Amino acid sequence: MYPSGFPGQDVDSKGSFVTITPVGEVLEGASRPTFFRGVATVCMKLFNIVQPTKVYFGQKDVQQTVVIRRMVTDLMIPTEVVVCPTERDPKDGLALSSRNVYLGTRRREIATVLYQSLNAAEVLYRNSETYDRETLLGAARHVAEGMRAIQSELPEEKRALFEVDYISLADPDTMMEVDQVDPEKGAVLSGAIKMLPIEKAAEGEDVGFGGGPAVRLIDNIILKPKTEYAKE
Amino acid sequence: MYPSGFPGQDVDSKGSFVTITPVGEVLEGASRPTFFRGVATVCMKLFNIVQPTKVYFGQKDVQQTVVIRRMVTDLMIPTEVVVCPTERDPKDGLALSSRNVYLGTRRREIATVLYQSLNAAEVLYRNSETYDRETLLGAARHVAEGMRAIQSELPEEKRALFEVDYISLADPDTMMEVDQVDPEKGAVLSGAIKMLPIEKAAEGEDVGFGGGPAVRLIDNIILKPKTEYAKE
Repeated sequence: MYPSGFPGQDVDSKGSFVTITPVGEVLEGASRPTFFRGVATVCMKLFNIVQPTKVYFGQKDVQQTVVIRRMVTDLMIPTEVVVCPTERDPKDGLALSSRNVYLGTRRREIATVLYQSLNAAEVLYRNSETYDRETLLGAARHVAEGMRAIQSELPEEKRALFEVDYISLADPDTMMEVDQVDPEKGAVLSGAIKMLPIEKAAEGEDVGFGGGPAVRLIDNIILKPKTEYAKE
Repeated sequence: MYPSGFPGQDVDSKGSFVTITPVGEVLEGASRPTFFRGVATVCMKLFNIVQPTKVYFGQKDVQQTVVIRRMVTDLMIPTEVVVCPTERDPKDGLALSSRNVYLGTRRREIATVLYQSLNAAEVLYRNSETYDRETLLGAARHVAEGMRAIQSELPEEKRALFEVDYISLADPDTMMEVDQVDPEKGAVLSGAIKMLPIEKAAEGEDVGFGGGPAVRLIDNIILKPKTEYAKE
């Protein structure tokens, strides 16, 4: 995959790269400055090798789908990008992720807080004429804050603490934060939380694979153009 | 050509880019830091639109050919890069260039100094076992310096002054400067000179198109693997 040798993952690494900015620099890219450069470059190579008619990406990594769509559009790649819906636990909607095995029973239950938070904002958008950033994100933050308050008051052997990394309301084409949702265009509601390790486990408690390390989870909901909900 | 709008040519412009470093940063890229990013990006778009079996580039822009070859190799682009020999004036070997019209008669004659300089180094490489950078480049510089000395002693109404921007001896795959030519691999001898404006024109003298501005000229000669000369 690296005819000239592995170029490295530093910002100033020398090599042959595809960079898609600013979309690759925000949100997940903010804490991992060369992550989406790596994604775009390796997908470009794969597309050139396979020359696919269609390429399929999962919506859970929503920023990745926006980076790839933009790369395909801007660099005139002859393929069609198809985004597949996020697979969720049918009981409580937790987005399926290979990382979930690290959660264990207690944290698994609380981990749904991210989806619930995003859902609160979506319900407001969908069922009212609320397009204002602070109101929509306020609804999401209210759910997360409420859960955090409940957990923090529980004793260590009962609670599961978490930190909200970000909750974002962004333009679906650029992932730039928006002050208002354009109801004809919609937006991307996304978030990341860090589930902290269990502080005090009960005897024999399942704390998750690998001893239950801190687990960072991401999720998102697409706010569609308002007219599309009427059709459903 | 720019579905997301023209991204600009600044180093920190945001957009969808292909960067090929370090080859795109040296020589011609040193004074024009985003030039080869633009070349690589626009060629990537063109290749994706046309999906050509072969692409043809001229050897005169030798660094461009190395950038494109590297892009095609590293990003697995399914095309073959063909490099076509530099077209030269059959009388004196001056590389054909749209810029030559700006030279006028007097500077046109002296402009061959770049090719003559590179030739001096090639003759040495080809006909001896000289692989040392300083000796090879010394031969080239000697020719250029000699011509510069001759011109500088002529009166203003006779002379054509020039400055040597660089004379380079570089690896053919990376365009990195080499201390020794590997005779099994060869090297790229390249240079750039700036022909300064005529100081004092004679009545009715052809000083070149547009009043004879300063003209920057480039040229190069590929030093082939030594075994290949035996076959000629």
